[in-house]
Amino acid sequence: MSAPTPLFLEDLHPGQKFPGGQVLLDLHRMKAFAAEFDPQPFHLDETAAQTSIFRGLAGSGWYTAALAMRQLVDGGLPFAHGLIGLGGEIAWPHPTRPGDTLTLESEILEVIPSRSKPQQGIALVRCTMTNQDGKSVYIFTVKILVHRRPVPN
Amino acid sequence: MSAPTPLFLEDLHPGQKFPGGQVLLDLHRMKAFAAEFDPQPFHLDETAAQTSIFRGLAGSGWYTAALAMRQLVDGGLPFAHGLIGLGGEIAWPHPTRPGDTLTLESEILEVIPSRSKPQQGIALVRCTMTNQDGKSVYIFTVKILVHRRPVPN
Repeated sequence: MSAPTPLFLEDLHPGQKFPGGQVLLDLHRMKAFAAEFDPQPFHLDETAAQTSIFRGLAGSGWYTAALAMRQLVDGGLPFAHGLIGLGGEIAWPHPTRPGDTLTLESEILEVIPSRSKPQQGIALVRCTMTNQDGKSVYIFTVKILVHRRPVPN
Repeated sequence: MSAPTPLFLEDLHPGQKFPGGQVLLDLHRMKAFAAEFDPQPFHLDETAAQTSIFRGLAGSGWYTAALAMRQLVDGGLPFAHGLIGLGGEIAWPHPTRPGDTLTLESEILEVIPSRSKPQQGIALVRCTMTNQDGKSVYIFTVKILVHRRPVPN
């Protein structure tokens, strides 16, 4: 598969969708991430997780966020000069479980040229990770800095 | 240092602040995280980073988020039954740099008892990571599920 053509602000329009890849939520990697960054019993210990609000082992929401980022970088959102997120709204509507297959999709919601910086703008993008049952486990609506296509000299 | 007393919804009020620990942004760990989850040149390659918008190597925003989470779990926000974030607003106002010392502070903005579930509620919490120059590198305003203190039988 060839690399996707890098996109500039002019190439984007609201409603445009970008498929991401799929990622399998591996039990050991999920636990390793939690052990380092989010060491709570319901992310690490099957028995303790049973009596938690999750009723079973659940992945850290930050692990889902990190996996989604990797998908975006790996061609899920092929913006020229890379993906620079300024901030956004994050939601984890359903827990992730070991063995889940997560699929990313991104949609352009808004394209906002900068008033002060003629060479750039912002794309408002909604990135959604969905599990094998069609449930959203991660929704990130993010403002991404996007470059305009350079004017040829 | 003894573990902090776990807090219930009744123990929280707007304006209450919780200090977090400090964390040093280690170059190698920062790059290892980026290599796994956010492999973009400005997070991995000093030379490429110089000509990027960051004008030098910058940490992945997701690494900052993960480090902040670890600080919260390590006593930065000692809620009973752990930290279950439902979602929130994230911002990365300034880049992080290798060698930065990041300090976390959390502030309760709002305490919202649940109408339908008498045993729980939501705390709206703003978590801020600040670097050694007093600049905010990460602001996460998050809704956290908090349990009410159990009524003795």
